[in-house]
Amino acid sequence: MAEENTVYIGNKETMAYVMAVVNQFNSGSDEVFIKARGRAISKAVDVAEITKNRFLKEASIAGIETDTEEIEQEEDDRTVNVSSMSITLSLEP
Amino acid sequence: MAEENTVYIGNKETMAYVMAVVNQFNSGSDEVFIKARGRAISKAVDVAEITKNRFLKEASIAGIETDTEEIEQEEDDRTVNVSSMSITLSLEP
Repeated sequence: MAEENTVYIGNKETMAYVMAVVNQFNSGSDEVFIKARGRAISKAVDVAEITKNRFLKEASIAGIETDTEEIEQEEDDRTVNVSSMSITLSLEP
Repeated sequence: MAEENTVYIGNKETMAYVMAVVNQFNSGSDEVFIKARGRAISKAVDVAEITKNRFLKEASIAGIETDTEEIEQEEDDRTVNVSSMSITLSLEP
């Protein structure tokens, strides 16, 4: 079920992800997970801040977690460590 | 006092900030605040993850907060919104 209310941040522009998060809430989710790795983490924070400040004032950040993931590189099979982040936006007070 | 155990993330390489955080703990701080704005937020997460995973295994992330700051642009006096983040690394269990 978690996958259904999860928005993964990639290379699209910020507002595309804001809209995806708003749509998740509008389709009935009480909380939405915004997930990103590496440089996309900054954009994930923008998405959370813009969503709660401009579109869903009743939403708030219920939690932020970070982790380190090992990513296998295609070129040489070596693994590199990449930081990841999950931001939980919630409608609960 | 908060300023003393705060490391602001800028344009230096990641390890420079990891060392700054480790030095803060070594000089007696129980917790260190890692602060960043905009694109530097991703690097702040790297700094926190690398510090606790590789240098100070007894440290953990006690809290992460985000905010939106209005920054005045020098060129035209207009303000732009920029996301900010503060990560609290703590030696407390």
